[in-house]
Order: sequence, then C-alpha cells, then structure tokens
Amino acid sequence: MTAVDAQESAELAKLYDDFASAGLMPLWTVRAGLMPQEPAPAAAPHAWAWKDLFPLAERAGRLVPVGRGGERRAIALANPGLGGEPYATPTLWAAVQYLGPKEVAPAHRHAQGAFRFVLDGEGVWTVVDGDPVAMRRGDLLLTPGWAWHEHQNTAAEPMVWLDGLDIPLVAQLDAGFFEFGPDELTDDSTPESSRGERLWGHPGLRPLSGLADLPHSPLPAYRWRHTDAALAAQLELEAEGHAATVEPGHAAVRFTNPTTGRDALPTLRLEMHRLAGDTVTATRREVGSSVWQVFTGSATVTLDQREVSLGVGDLFVVPSWCPLTLRADGPVDLFRFSDAPAYEALRLARHAVVAR
Amino acid sequence: MTAVDAQESAELAKLYDDFASAGLMPLWTVRAGLMPQEPAPAAAPHAWAWKDLFPLAERAGRLVPVGRGGERRAIALANPGLGGEPYATPTLWAAVQYLGPKEVAPAHRHAQGAFRFVLDGEGVWTVVDGDPVAMRRGDLLLTPGWAWHEHQNTAAEPMVWLDGLDIPLVAQLDAGFFEFGPDELTDDSTPESSRGERLWGHPGLRPLSGLADLPHSPLPAYRWRHTDAALAAQLELEAEGHAATVEPGHAAVRFTNPTTGRDALPTLRLEMHRLAGDTVTATRREVGSSVWQVFTGSATVTLDQREVSLGVGDLFVVPSWCPLTLRADGPVDLFRFSDAPAYEALRLARHAVVAR
Amino acid sequence: MTAVDAQESAELAKLYDDFASAGLMPLWTVRAGLMPQEPAPAAAPHAWAWKDLFPLAERAGRLVPVGRGGERRAIALANPGLGGEPYATPTLWAAVQYLGPKEVAPAHRHAQGAFRFVLDGEGVWTVVDGDPVAMRRGDLLLTPGWAWHEHQNTAAEPMVWLDGLDIPLVAQLDAGFFEFGPDELTDDSTPESSRGERLWGHPGLRPLSGLADLPHSPLPAYRWRHTDAALAAQLELEAEGHAATVEPGHAAVRFTNPTTGRDALPTLRLEMHRLAGDTVTATRREVGSSVWQVFTGSATVTLDQREVSLGVGDLFVVPSWCPLTLRADGPVDLFRFSDAPAYEALRLARHAVVAR
Amino acid sequence: MTAVDAQESAELAKLYDDFASAGLMPLWTVRAGLMPQEPAPAAAPHAWAWKDLFPLAERAGRLVPVGRGGERRAIALANPGLGGEPYATPTLWAAVQYLGPKEVAPAHRHAQGAFRFVLDGEGVWTVVDGDPVAMRRGDLLLTPGWAWHEHQNTAAEPMVWLDGLDIPLVAQLDAGFFEFGPDELTDDSTPESSRGERLWGHPGLRPLSGLADLPHSPLPAYRWRHTDAALAAQLELEAEGHAATVEPGHAAVRFTNPTTGRDALPTLRLEMHRLAGDTVTATRREVGSSVWQVFTGSATVTLDQREVSLGVGDLFVVPSWCPLTLRADGPVDLFRFSDAPAYEALRLARHAVVAR
Repeated sequence: MTAVDAQESAELAKLYDDFASAGLMPLWTVRAGLMPQEPAPAAAPHAWAWKDLFPLAERAGRLVPVGRGGERRAIALANPGLGGEPYATPTLWAAVQYLGPKEVAPAHRHAQGAFRFVLDGEGVWTVVDGDPVAMRRGDLLLTPGWAWHEHQNTAAEPMVWLDGLDIPLVAQLDAGFFEFGPDELTDDSTPESSRGERLWGHPGLRPLSGLADLPHSPLPAYRWRHTDAALAAQLELEAEGHAATVEPGHAAVRFTNPTTGRDALPTLRLEMHRLAGDTVTATRREVGSSVWQVFTGSATVTLDQREVSLGVGDLFVVPSWCPLTLRADGPVDLFRFSDAPAYEALRLARHAVVAR
Repeated sequence: MTAVDAQESAELAKLYDDFASAGLMPLWTVRAGLMPQEPAPAAAPHAWAWKDLFPLAERAGRLVPVGRGGERRAIALANPGLGGEPYATPTLWAAVQYLGPKEVAPAHRHAQGAFRFVLDGEGVWTVVDGDPVAMRRGDLLLTPGWAWHEHQNTAAEPMVWLDGLDIPLVAQLDAGFFEFGPDELTDDSTPESSRGERLWGHPGLRPLSGLADLPHSPLPAYRWRHTDAALAAQLELEAEGHAATVEPGHAAVRFTNPTTGRDALPTLRLEMHRLAGDTVTATRREVGSSVWQVFTGSATVTLDQREVSLGVGDLFVVPSWCPLTLRADGPVDLFRFSDAPAYEALRLARHAVVAR
Repeated sequence: MTAVDAQESAELAKLYDDFASAGLMPLWTVRAGLMPQEPAPAAAPHAWAWKDLFPLAERAGRLVPVGRGGERRAIALANPGLGGEPYATPTLWAAVQYLGPKEVAPAHRHAQGAFRFVLDGEGVWTVVDGDPVAMRRGDLLLTPGWAWHEHQNTAAEPMVWLDGLDIPLVAQLDAGFFEFGPDELTDDSTPESSRGERLWGHPGLRPLSGLADLPHSPLPAYRWRHTDAALAAQLELEAEGHAATVEPGHAAVRFTNPTTGRDALPTLRLEMHRLAGDTVTATRREVGSSVWQVFTGSATVTLDQREVSLGVGDLFVVPSWCPLTLRADGPVDLFRFSDAPAYEALRLARHAVVAR
Repeated sequence: MTAVDAQESAELAKLYDDFASAGLMPLWTVRAGLMPQEPAPAAAPHAWAWKDLFPLAERAGRLVPVGRGGERRAIALANPGLGGEPYATPTLWAAVQYLGPKEVAPAHRHAQGAFRFVLDGEGVWTVVDGDPVAMRRGDLLLTPGWAWHEHQNTAAEPMVWLDGLDIPLVAQLDAGFFEFGPDELTDDSTPESSRGERLWGHPGLRPLSGLADLPHSPLPAYRWRHTDAALAAQLELEAEGHAATVEPGHAAVRFTNPTTGRDALPTLRLEMHRLAGDTVTATRREVGSSVWQVFTGSATVTLDQREVSLGVGDLFVVPSWCPLTLRADGPVDLFRFSDAPAYEALRLARHAVVAR
C-alpha cells in the first residue's frame, strides 16, 4: 500500500465512521443484498406434520389455560429461516388453535384480519360481531380486521383448527390495534346458521339492505358442502369436455367478497384446491408467500427441488418465488392461503410457470 | 300593432323561417318542454291483468307460428303514453313469450340484454351460448347482450314467461346489432343444472378458471329456491330483531354479477321483493322507470294517486319520478326490473321518499 | 282463399285488434325494425356552414331578447332525420349561443350536463356555481349537471360560441330537472383566471383539500394555450420518431376529469383533434354519435360516401355507425364531442376501422 | 413449590422445548408484543441536519467512485430504532445522492419504485426508459418500478438530491427484482423538456394515444414552477375567503397519476406542503410512516413531544401513529413522502387529529 493509498483508505474508514455517527449508511456497500436480482427470501420452504403438531396441541390443552392476555391457545408455525419469530412467512401467521371441551376464548378485536379453517370436528361457535357462527369440518370462517370475536366450545370433545392472520405484515407495517372485549361470552346461542349466512349466503343474491360495498366479505362462513360441490362440479365439467379447471385434473375455488367479487379479506387470499388422482400440477412460482394444508388425501409437494410427502393435516409454506409442484397420490384436497391481494394492490405481483 | 311592431313581427317570422330552412331551431321557444322542472314522462303509469294477457298469448299460440324473422312469439306491453311503440317504458321492453308443446325458437343474438322470469310451468330449456338452462317456476334466466340463445319446449304443455330487454334504450341509442344463428336447435339436452350454474352457483366461491371480471353475470340462472330462501331469511331475521329488510315487512334481493357484486346486467336491474301481510311500503319515487310483476299473492299499488288491485301475473309499469306505494293483501312476492344501472352509470340517478 | 284460410285470417285480424285493445303489441310483426342487423339511425349525417349560421345568430341578436323562460339565445342544430326535434343526434344537443354587448343570461341549473366551446372572441364570463370563468377563443368551459350558471358579456362586441349538452339523452331518459336562479347577475367580477383553475389547473397536482373523487371535472375551463401546446407536442414528437399521435399526422387530446382520469363529464366526451396538412385519417365507425366543429383551417369530411368541404366554424354530425374519414386541406384543428362515455358505461360501445 | 406444581412446571418446560424442536411457537407468551394496543414502532422519530449530511456527501464524492455493483453514490438515512438497517422507516428508504461533475450513474432497473426530489442545483439529466429528464431545483422526478434509469451530470458542479424508494417494504415482502443495463449512457441529449412531459404535462388533457390506465404516473417530472404556483394559489384563495387549504395557512398538493387521479406511484405518496408564516398545524397522527424535507424556510416540528428546529435541507421521519405538529418560522415549504397508498390499499389506514 502506498502512502496515498493508505491515506485514502484511512479517509474512507473515517468517512464510514462519520456516516455511522450521523445515522447514515451508504448504499454502495449493501446494494446487492438490499436489491437482489430476484427474491431471495430468508423464509425457508418448510413442512410441519400433523402427527407432530396435534399431540403438542393436546398437551398444551392439558397444561395451558386460555386466559386474558394470552387470549388464545394457538401454536404458531415458526419458519426456520425467520430467526425465531412466530411467523410462517414474512407476511403470514399460521397457527393451530386448540379449544378444550366447554372452554371459551373471550372477545377481543384487532386490526389484523383472520380466518379459521376447520380440519375436523365440530361443536365450536365463533361469535363475530355478535353473530354466532358454527364451525364444522371443512368450513372456512372469517373474522375480518377490527371485528369482535370470541370462541365457545359446546362439545364434550376438544376442537382444533387452523388460524391464519396477517400478523407479520401488520407488525412490519406498524399498523396493529388491539382491544379487549368482555371476559364473559356475549352470546351462547348455537344456531345452525349465522345471521350473516342467512342474509348473504345465496348465490348471486344481494340483500337490498346491503348495497354498500365492504372491504371484506359479509359472509361469516363458507361451508364445506358448497366448497365440495363447487370443486366436484369443476372436475365433472372437465370430464364432460368443458373448460372449468385451472389445469387438467386441478379444480380450485377462491373465497370471495360478494359485494365486490374480490378476495374475502383485503390482505389474505383464501382458496381450496382439489387434485384428481395422479394429477401433477405445472411448476409455478409467484412473488409473495403462501401456506397450504392438506384437508383430505395425500400428496407430494416439491418445493424448489425438495420433495415432501404430505398427509391429512400436514402444512407447508412456500416462500416468495419458490417453485412449487404438487403431485396427487389419489384424490387430494388442499386449503391454501396467501398474501397475494397485498401484492396485487401494490403492483408487486409476478407469476411464472417454470415447467409444465 | 304599430308599423314598427309589424315590421319586427315580420322580421321575426322570416327569421324562424330561415332557421327552419337552415336546419336550425331556437331554444327559447321550446326550452320549457325540453327541460322541465322535473321529469314529465310521456309514459303513463299503467297495469296489465294476467287474465287478459294470458288468453291472448294462448290464441297467438294457436294462430301464429314461431319462425325465422319474427323469431319469438312474444307479446309486448305497449305503454299507452308512448304513441303506439311496443315499449313498456322509454327504456324497457316487457313481453309475454309463449312457446307451445315441443316448439323451438331458433338461435339468434343481439346487442340488447335480456332476461326471462318464469311465472309458472316448466319444461323449457334456453340454450345460452351452447349451455342448456332449465326454466322453472320462479327462476330468473339471463341472456346477456350478444349471447346466442334459443328456446326449446320439451313438455306436452305450453309454457309462458316474462321477457325483459333494454330494446327501447338500445333503439334510442342506435346501438343495436342482431345476428341469426342456425335454424335447428344446437343442443337438445335437458340437464337439471346448466354448466354456468355448476361453475358459478356456489355462494362466495369463485372458480380460479374465472378470475376475469365480466360486464354481466356468468350465472345463467337464479333459481327460485335460493330467491325464496333469501327473502324468507330476511323476514325471519327482522322478526328476530335484526336489520335485514328494506323497511319493516319488506324483504328484497337484487340479482347480481358475482364477478363484481354489481347488477347482473349492465343496463337492467333485477330484483325480487316480498311483502309480509299488511305491509305498506313508504311512498317512493326515482328517476328511471321500472316494470313489476306479481309472482304470488295479491297487492294494491298506488301510482301517483291511482290505485290498482293486482293478482298473480299482473304487471304494472312505473314511469320516471312517479310516486309508488305498495300495500300487501297478505304475503306477496313481486318481481321487478328497471333501468337503474344506466342512470347510476350516467350520474342521473335520484331518489326520494315522498311519504312514510 | 279457402274457408279455413279465411277463418284463420279473420281470427288473426281479431287477435291483433284484441292485442291493441289490451295495450299489447306482437314482436313478430316489428322485430326487424326494432332490432336491426346493425344500427340504422334515423339521424342523418349532416353539415351546417358557419356562413349560414352566424348571420342568423346575428339577426336573432337584434330581434330576440334574452329573457327568463327562454333563458338563452341559443340556436340548435336540428338533424334533418329527427323529425323536427331540435336535436343534433338522438343523444346530443348542439347550439350556437349569441350574447350581445353588455347582455346577461341569468342563472339557472339543470340535470343536463353542458359545455361551451369558443370559436372566436372574448369578453364573456360564465359564472359557474359562483365562480366567474373567462371565455376566450379556443377555450372549453364546463357547466356540469346541476351546477348553477349564468353568462355576462362585458364587451362592446357580441360573442358567439358552441353549446353542447346531453339534452336529448336526458329527455329520452325522463331524467331532467331544472331550476331558475336569481334574475340578476350574482357576480360581475372578471378575473383573469377562475378559482377552479387556480386550484386544479396544475398538471398532475391535486390539492389536498380536493381528495374526494367527483363525477365531473373540477376544472371549469381548459384553455386554448394548453390544448394548442399539447397538440403541437404530439406532432413534434411524431416528427422526432416517437409514438404520440392517434395515427400519422393526427394529434388528439381528450378533456378529462383530473380526479379520475376519465371523461370531464359523465355523459359527454370532449376532444380536440389536429391534422397536419395532407393527412387523411383511417375510415372509422363507432356506435354512438358525435358533433364536430372546425376551429382552424379547412378539411373535407366523408360521411358514408358523401363528401363535404368544411371551413372555420362549420359543424357536422356523425350518426351511430356511420363511416367517417377526414382529409386535411392544410393544417386543421377540429373540436369534437360525443356521447361515448354513456356507451362505454352501458357496455354498448363498438368501434371498427373500415379502411386505412 | 409442591410436587404437583413442580411436575406441571417441568411438563410445561418440556412442552416449550418440544414446540421449539417442532418449529412451533405459542401465541400466549408473545401476544402482547405481537399485537399491541396501538402501533408501537421500533422506528424512532428522528431528524438529520443538512449541515451534517451535505459535507459527508461531498467527502464521499471525493473518495468513492460511482461504479457497477454499488450503482449509486447514495447515502441513506438509517433510523436509529431499526437496528442498523439503512432504512428511514420500516417501509421507506431515503437517501442523499451525490453526482460529481460530468459523472454518469449507469442504467439499471428494479421492482422498487423511486423518485428524486431536487433540493438545489441543476445540470443532471435522468434518463427514464430512454427519455432524458432534466433535474432542477424543486423538481420531483419519478422512476417507477421496473423502469430503466440512469443519471448524467452535464455540469461543472456536483449535484445532490433526495432519493426516495420503497426498498424496505419490498425487501420485507421479498418482491425485489433487479437488472443491470448497459454500462454506457444510452442517451446523452439534454432536452429542456422530457418527452413524457410534452405528452402528458398539460392540465386535464389526455393524449388519445394514452388511453390505457397505468399503475404509475406517465409524467416523468413535476416541475417546481407548477408546484409553486399551485401552493401560492391555495393561500391566495384562502386569503380571498375561499376553501382551498388543508387548514388555515397550510397549503398542500399531492403528486398524482393523471390516468387515474390517484397517487403517482402505487406504494409512495408524494406531497409538497407550504405553511404561511406563523402557521401552526393541528397535531395529527396516522398509521404508516413518512419522511419530510424542508425545501425553503425554517420550521419547528414536534414529534411526540420532542421539538426539533429545522432549516433548509433538513430531514425528519415520522413513525407510524407518532403525533406530528409543524410550526412555521416564516413561510416554509416542505416536501413529504409516505407509504400511505399501501395502507389504503390494504385497508389498514387510520388517521386522527390529536389536537387543533
């Protein structure tokens, strides 16, 4: 090193020190990491087996009460790439919630949007803004942002379901608000059908008392009998020679807001997919992340070269831009949720088919 | 008259003559008629009794074949204020269509949007863009603008239904296109459910193969069982103390496009109303016109002071800005269609409650 | 004729009589006229020469006062195909308005939307909802539906301009409301720039006090210096090899609502076109009608085979679906207004290029 | 501790261990931190003085070349609460970019949206998708997501400006793509006005060649003369007694996309504010963060009780939900950018006036 070089080097070191003292940071030393050629998520593609999850939920059921403050006996998927945060992906929270026989989880509300997807069981009612909504196998329930909600298990059996929220996204955005409701259950009635479904659950029919568009769906629940029928119809139509499926053997529906036809929640996309036996999907990648849960059947998922075998209840996450292929081992139904509405709203969405 | 006055008068007469020769017309002589203080429709409030209509349709069924050119055995309501035009209102066409046993009305398509509402009977299939759609009592069927459509009566009985179109609006706008299809029926199958319903008829569920928004509903039919259930639920919810109806005792649904949540057709609003017994609606007026048909029960309508008693099948038209009150003589269901989407799109809509 | 035929014929005649008595009309006898293969407008393509129009306006200025009731000294184009109605087309009103030196046309408002396009002169202020707006050569002024407006000529010379409204459309729709304002001018100030322009007339800049979207433009006037500059820039960019024009030699701008980017008025499309010398446009047709006025230069228009030579101030109308070709005799500027926003909103718009 | 308690405690510890091994995390131990009562941002309210920033930028100009890889001599604000990340807030990047005399920063493009705001100087052209755009004092330039851009300093003086991007938001969302362009400048012309401005920079005028709506503004630059005139007009209108300002003495404009009337960029809100002397704004808070820079004059900002005195060039950041008050020491102009469009699109926006 020449004297000139040494002086320059010292000046540069001093400059970087002075940057730091002034609360500044140069772009040129971090540009490549900040702005990669394509998404390089810290979140890993990862799977969780139901046979591991469920016993842990049961043990929590025995050991941990549902109480004010903790609020819910929910056990979250913690993506191994996200440094110990209880986040399935950088935007999505996914947890298994366990409610024991006769237990109640008290009312609260939050800016975060949420849904529940029921893998199995029945007997719980979720009261959403005062409207008791039955939870049964295969149902999808919404608790949109800032809606009061509480859960009541009326049965002698515990019940377990999947909770999905936009907690990490809202945390990152510093947009969270939270409020406690009453400690006691506000409505212990157990109607077959919620008021929201009675008002809104008729295909293509809009009540004249509900003409204002809403940011989220007014339907509190999407029932399995409808979802199942819709998926079955797509495969039947395909078999009859008509366009109905995403690709051969792959039926899918999106849960939407009937006031707009758009996603049921403004930050979360909710879908159910059905693959006929022996179906292999195209390999696709998209910007944004998603969480899948097997509802029936078994399948093999390939996440960026890595194959995982999946059975009922198993969950996996797909980080942004990670190639995904699904192969059905016999007929299989999969629930999926993602952050896609956010990316579309922000004009950051991209999709690609890697291989067909 | 002075000589000056006389000269002025002569000059003025000459000016008006010269206007006429030049293809011109002064505003000041016609302003009040052109631009009234409030809507002064030529169309009259008027009612047609089913007991008069139906026998005439039957006689037409015996005497007039369904053939190429005439296209349909449809008998239109001709508003007495509209100078002999076959128009229910300045924007709306309403006709009774009669199809004899085993008859076929061949395929055509037109820019005009259409629907069918079935007062009674069954056995006819309307094939819409190749998709056979069963018609049964209480059902509403769509044949959106430029969709091919044809009708087949498979039954041993004739069938009659209400056709509604935007023919007068499209005529006024010189926007009509028309094309003949094949003379022979293109699909004589008689499925229980159309392909469109199988794909789209699930509440809140959108097929992933149908993510592009459409100007009209992809649902070819809205079935009476759904409409009836939706109306019943509103009255039940009201009885339980919840907001659900338009006003006490008055339930109503709008038939909508699930891809957008908006009206099922871009120029026509389609609704079903149910009044509980003894219900009297508020007196309302709105800019734009509508046609109503009693589906079940009996009612009394007051149209700008004039009372008319109505029974099943009876039709009446409400011109723009004409005050309307309905009084139910026992439970009554009424189908209604109007041109409201056009007024809303053009920012010409106005509503008022005259009396409650 | 056999006895059977004769009886049938008599029965048929009786049926048609009975239809008429019952206020009904069969489709099959009128279908072809009601629903033509393609638009068959009654309105004719037609032109009016400024050399005929202007002297008549001057004579009206001498002979006819501007008074309450008649409201405006406006002389409307009466399309020869529209049976004596003062309508340029079935949807559009176009009139020459003449205001003498120091004259005032008092305030009124109406549901009909209006604009003024200034062929020549200056000295008039139009007060729109209390905001005085100067009128000068080449300017376009808006008086949106239900905005109060009044005109004041401050000059020693008369002034003439083109008024365009949606009067026929609103009349057909029975949607008109009209209200008289004060008889005296409400504001006789003559500011260089209106308040609306001062607030909104900055490219791409939206006042934070104006964040609510409006159905019509908040800009009361579009000044010629801007329009001229925009058109000139397009032709210059084209000459430099960049995409900027509609087609070679044909520059055009649309006057838009800065709160939405859409048409300045919900029922009227407003545009200025500039053709470089020797430019011949493609031959185009569109559903819906338009009115054009030559602002500078001379041109030849071909309307469905018929050629008309046009000079400054000349007007012509293009009925729905009528093929239109323009040929510039040297540089020419043309103002155009049409009903296109209505057709787009109602999903009735169609366009075709007939020849290039 | 009883034996029972001890066993429970041991079981619980084992459960938490097993959670961790299984890649799971309970909600109840972290709920309060994850879902605070109201936003509790890690980002601090903070200010940076221009007198500190500018000399550091100059030193970097002497010591650090602009080169491929580092790409830009940009020095970022690193919020002291954000753990050493070069982020002004959790969503916003703000940096001072320094370009020496005759220097060129080569072409690249990225999914991240960017703008440049020019505090002082001139002589640089930014080439955006091949269109050279002059940069001068007070101008705002856009380089929307995925637009190629490069900078050329034609002057004998260095130039410094503010870069704003959505880098942290896009990083969090794993939505970044980046591509290098040619190493050499693609267009060294220095036009007075960019092609984009010539086509789009006319108030309310939309080229017919640009009828498709865009997610970002087609205007490459918003010039100071327009911004200044718009702000001056608001204060003048207020002085004349008309509604025009945000609050007394506080004028403000938003930079918008003329194809939609919405924000110029889909993830960034861009505004210029002018306070008349002695103006004190209301104290406001909003969900989402923003960065402000003083353009002219001096002011005092109160950020959650803490007062900071600001002069020309000084920057400060407002974290989510942090109360903000501005007090003008004489007339002051402030540029502001924020992430508000993202919050509005995701339905997470909230605003409150804390004190007036």
